[in-house]
Amino acid sequence: MSTLDWIAVDWGTTHCRAWAIGPSGQVLSEASSSDGMGGLRPDQFEAALLNLVEPWLDVTTVDVVACGMVGSRQGWVEAPYAQVPCAPADTETVLAPTKDVRLRVQIVPGLKQIDPADVMRGEETQIAGALSLSPNFDGVMVLPGTHSKWVQISADEVVSFRSFMTGEMFGLLSRASVLKHSMDDGWDGAAFSEAVEETLSRPESLASKLFSIRAETLLKGLPGAAARARLSGLLIGAELAATKPYWLGMPVSILGADALGDAYGAALAAQGIEAKMIAPVDATLAGLSAARMKQKETT
Amino acid sequence: MSTLDWIAVDWGTTHCRAWAIGPSGQVLSEASSSDGMGGLRPDQFEAALLNLVEPWLDVTTVDVVACGMVGSRQGWVEAPYAQVPCAPADTETVLAPTKDVRLRVQIVPGLKQIDPADVMRGEETQIAGALSLSPNFDGVMVLPGTHSKWVQISADEVVSFRSFMTGEMFGLLSRASVLKHSMDDGWDGAAFSEAVEETLSRPESLASKLFSIRAETLLKGLPGAAARARLSGLLIGAELAATKPYWLGMPVSILGADALGDAYGAALAAQGIEAKMIAPVDATLAGLSAARMKQKETT
Repeated sequence: MSTLDWIAVDWGTTHCRAWAIGPSGQVLSEASSSDGMGGLRPDQFEAALLNLVEPWLDVTTVDVVACGMVGSRQGWVEAPYAQVPCAPADTETVLAPTKDVRLRVQIVPGLKQIDPADVMRGEETQIAGALSLSPNFDGVMVLPGTHSKWVQISADEVVSFRSFMTGEMFGLLSRASVLKHSMDDGWDGAAFSEAVEETLSRPESLASKLFSIRAETLLKGLPGAAARARLSGLLIGAELAATKPYWLGMPVSILGADALGDAYGAALAAQGIEAKMIAPVDATLAGLSAARMKQKETT
Repeated sequence: MSTLDWIAVDWGTTHCRAWAIGPSGQVLSEASSSDGMGGLRPDQFEAALLNLVEPWLDVTTVDVVACGMVGSRQGWVEAPYAQVPCAPADTETVLAPTKDVRLRVQIVPGLKQIDPADVMRGEETQIAGALSLSPNFDGVMVLPGTHSKWVQISADEVVSFRSFMTGEMFGLLSRASVLKHSMDDGWDGAAFSEAVEETLSRPESLASKLFSIRAETLLKGLPGAAARARLSGLLIGAELAATKPYWLGMPVSILGADALGDAYGAALAAQGIEAKMIAPVDATLAGLSAARMKQKETT
């Protein structure tokens, strides 16, 4: 791959995704594996990375810029959190130890907030990328996912943020709780919207309405698609109730793809918020690129 | 066991517990196994029961009265729900099919509520038993557990009830979510009380405060005992917020044992509610005994 300029890597708890980037910023190739941070010891990261990117390498040293849980204390090398308020990727990257001289691996630090206590790793790169794609954005970015984030942006800085376990709770409740017997893989948009409205207006009702999904299956034959959409809606509605000070009357961008991003968009639209959708992959690549440019300037 | 009069059985999703009862109502012996309803086909229940109670049998036919998920559609035989408002164990028991002539097995039906949809199986027997132990009780019974129940009692009837997934959520979040890394087996009463107060006063904050347990571990070294108590407190506080119309200014009995019953008691005491504690086993046995007496009257 003679035109390879650098390699971008998004390395989370359960997956690793790499892109070969050309001199003009174009994606030449990509590869991914399930070698997530959660399954690797520190001395196994280099081999896991080579397993993905070796076909792209020749004899020269290539810059690799990685974000995500790879920089946690249990990761390849710890990249200590930067503290908000700050620009989302304004801290220097941390060099990971490598044996292969063809790799020069830089890891982007995450962000922390002291009060209320909160952390992110990987999302700061997406936020930086979204800001480079939408300069001067002032408002709120929503990053749906396992641990969704609501991020207040002003003057190119992350002012504050809050994380929610909505995605992880949906996964646990839909696959491992008594509610699993009520679900199928379908979706019912009307049931979702109704459930969002219920917990957004009465967040304290979440705890009892979860079990009622099971009871409605038993007593009223609630269809599996409606049950699944209802569970998602109850959880996202409760998240919207908690984040109302973030989104009410504010410009909102959703860094979300596929059905989950659409669900957040629909929930916000019902509240009169027309959120801008940004593809997370675009944001990640733009953020890693910005981190690399900054790194080149400072070295 | 010449003095055996009848056999009481509490048969849930994950366990089966049986008691040999003498003529004056005394417990002669007890036995339990992990042959819960969840792991048995309908044709396997009789053998699972005999495995527990055969040492107690001679040649005569013995009455067995069972409550719990054994009467669900996936159980030994379906005992259709009685609909509230009604007395908690006022419906006729259902005879389960047996081959062994020494067994005559009666199953107590559960209760259902149409709007909001809700169901219980097993708890109705505990409630009936608690009522026989506290005649003329008028108020609210709380049954902590995997799916905790809040039950409004008036004139010896269940007027309404609501179920909460608090126990199951605690289990999933403490053992299977990112929060498991923050927990140990300890307990911190002050952290529990503080967390109850937080979500009771601001139930919408539950969603964000869950993740903050992880962040406080990472950033502030939150001890494992405090993290575990805090998770429990956030969930129980949200449950108390949802059930405020049930308990505010009402006599409350908690049918709960051990640490979990104590936790609910402490949470209510902080709100000025001095709940009466009733041992669930006592309530179950009294309820099964009442169901048997009623059965004998009607046959």
